Amino acid sequence: MAKSKLLFTPGPLTTSRAVKAAMMRDLGSRDTEFIAVVREIRARLLTLGHASADEYTTILMQGSGTFGIESVISTVIPPQGKLLVIINGAYGKRIAQIATVHKIENTALTYDENRQPNPQAVDAALAADPAITHVAIVHCETTSGIVNPIEAIGTIVKQHNRVYIVDAMSSFGAIPMNLAECGIAYLISSANKCVQGVPGFSFIIARRAALLATAGYARSISLDLLAQWRGLEGEGQFRFTPPTHALLAFQQALKELDLEGGVSGRAMRYRTNHDTLVEGMRALGFQEYVDPASQGYIITSFRYPSHPNFDFKKFYTALSAKGCVIYPGQVSKTDCFRIGHIGYIGRRETLKLLRAIRQTLAEMNLVLEKES
Amino acid sequence: MAKSKLLFTPGPLTTSRAVKAAMMRDLGSRDTEFIAVVREIRARLLTLGHASADEYTTILMQGSGTFGIESVISTVIPPQGKLLVIINGAYGKRIAQIATVHKIENTALTYDENRQPNPQAVDAALAADPAITHVAIVHCETTSGIVNPIEAIGTIVKQHNRVYIVDAMSSFGAIPMNLAECGIAYLISSANKCVQGVPGFSFIIARRAALLATAGYARSISLDLLAQWRGLEGEGQFRFTPPTHALLAFQQALKELDLEGGVSGRAMRYRTNHDTLVEGMRALGFQEYVDPASQGYIITSFRYPSHPNFDFKKFYTALSAKGCVIYPGQVSKTDCFRIGHIGYIGRRETLKLLRAIRQTLAEMNLVLEKES
Repeated sequence: MAKSKLLFTPGPLTTSRAVKAAMMRDLGSRDTEFIAVVREIRARLLTLGHASADEYTTILMQGSGTFGIESVISTVIPPQGKLLVIINGAYGKRIAQIATVHKIENTALTYDENRQPNPQAVDAALAADPAITHVAIVHCETTSGIVNPIEAIGTIVKQHNRVYIVDAMSSFGAIPMNLAECGIAYLISSANKCVQGVPGFSFIIARRAALLATAGYARSISLDLLAQWRGLEGEGQFRFTPPTHALLAFQQALKELDLEGGVSGRAMRYRTNHDTLVEGMRALGFQEYVDPASQGYIITSFRYPSHPNFDFKKFYTALSAKGCVIYPGQVSKTDCFRIGHIGYIGRRETLKLLRAIRQTLAEMNLVLEKES
Repeated sequence: MAKSKLLFTPGPLTTSRAVKAAMMRDLGSRDTEFIAVVREIRARLLTLGHASADEYTTILMQGSGTFGIESVISTVIPPQGKLLVIINGAYGKRIAQIATVHKIENTALTYDENRQPNPQAVDAALAADPAITHVAIVHCETTSGIVNPIEAIGTIVKQHNRVYIVDAMSSFGAIPMNLAECGIAYLISSANKCVQGVPGFSFIIARRAALLATAGYARSISLDLLAQWRGLEGEGQFRFTPPTHALLAFQQALKELDLEGGVSGRAMRYRTNHDTLVEGMRALGFQEYVDPASQGYIITSFRYPSHPNFDFKKFYTALSAKGCVIYPGQVSKTDCFRIGHIGYIGRRETLKLLRAIRQTLAEMNLVLEKES
């Protein structure tokens, strides 16, 4: 069998051997054993968000994170509702696109991709437009790696009594958070991110009372969040065939997260990965795209060096040949590439990547001048 | 690690060890190696349907089969279109529900769950209603196990120049078919059915010219079939994080299908499973729900015995404890249970199930009277 390369990407990620080995079983999707797996996963996800089971509930949804986002947007906003999307990257934009395709009225507060949104501007927008019923924001914008102030904005949203939707795709499980304190009604994340499972499903942590008030709004069968919740609460089953193997992998991934010391333990490792990488990249002459003050430790965007010998495709391919997979950039106005710090990788793997980058630069005859 | 039980279900199924072992790797979803896997899978699926690459194309879509169905229904029918759904089971009904939630005008030809639809009735319905633009049917209704005459109905649909959509979830890969000869514009199936992969995605084989004419109709972002196809054709990638491990498993599953002699080889094994089981069940006094003439070799519904000692939950649990997982019934008017013949199981496993059933009947003090 070919060896896995190290993935310095925003997911799918490098996962542990035990996570993958958990998939070496076929479970019946309506069998009691699988139902117990689903129940355990749903409960453990609540504790990761410090969410009380009295107030919150978990829904698992087939498909990637975008499917989870669309299930929320298309299920929970009433026909006469209006969504404010706070945008500073591609994933914020996608939320607005989803609202638009479902003919949900929406408006945006848009920022440059390396700028954090301003809570006061959200306050003003909500004060100015009482038609807005829901507010959506991305926690860690994978586009750039920037981390947005979801708690400060959540406080504002709560003051205005609107429903708060947080896309925590790339942060949940690695950035400590308390759903109730942030005033979150719906949080969406994905199996193949900081919990370190394999891709195949997303999950939503919802305030039960909010979810129960959405009957009749769903604009899809597959992505009907409320119906999916009813299936999970009723018989403990997915309505439609679940990715059983991905769920077994996730159950193991949750155990490993606990063993690592939970969210704070994982945060420490990812932060070390990030700090190690950024220090090494700066020493090689690379520059980050996002200001350190708003940069998270999940994924970092680096500007293309201005050196004429730099060619991203060659750079990527040479690193991949050395067993290290990085990620192309996504910001719109600046040429960047991205390096992820999440997954089953640590300081040792990060140093391996830095050696591979140093060697690749030498092969490309590329000596970068350091800013002094 | 706990042992897998044998799954006599409509999927997820028992898969081979090599299919599961193919998941022991983490591949980057935008990496060249994964792109090659996707390309190979898309091409091989065409050949299974005897579909020419000039005329047809394959789209892979995250989520279960229902997600694939909804991606077709919500993408390909124009705002002024009208769908005729031919219904003789829960999956036909679901197609109509999907159309309704998307506010697509629809009408149905409904039959009892153990009766095949009548091509002449389809002919009459299409002649009577020129507003109908699309016709949808389920090939093998997993509800009962009945197989519907998709070729005869396809001929009628073609004569009336309507667009033909076939849900081949439980049949594709095990019942030989030729898409062009059936006049199929869109065929939908799933990874965890007769190709014997693991659950995580569905696939659609589409007539390219039909698909290209659907621009602007999509009613979802995640389930936009045309946009998904453009992504796969353009950069060879999924638009949103794919279930990489499930795709690696599927690539292996396709190889094993070839080694078994393709669709006809697999059909032979499934037919043996079916024949062995039905013979044994009849000998034990069970009766099938569907008439043998329209019963497929994919899954068989058996009526609950009328004996007072029969209790499905106890029966199921006792079989599960013996390592054999069967499936509850789904038909609406008759109490049934179902036994699947698909997956990595053969005559030996089917005989094992029959022994387990015989033993369970003895434990339940249940001697069934045979019909003479």
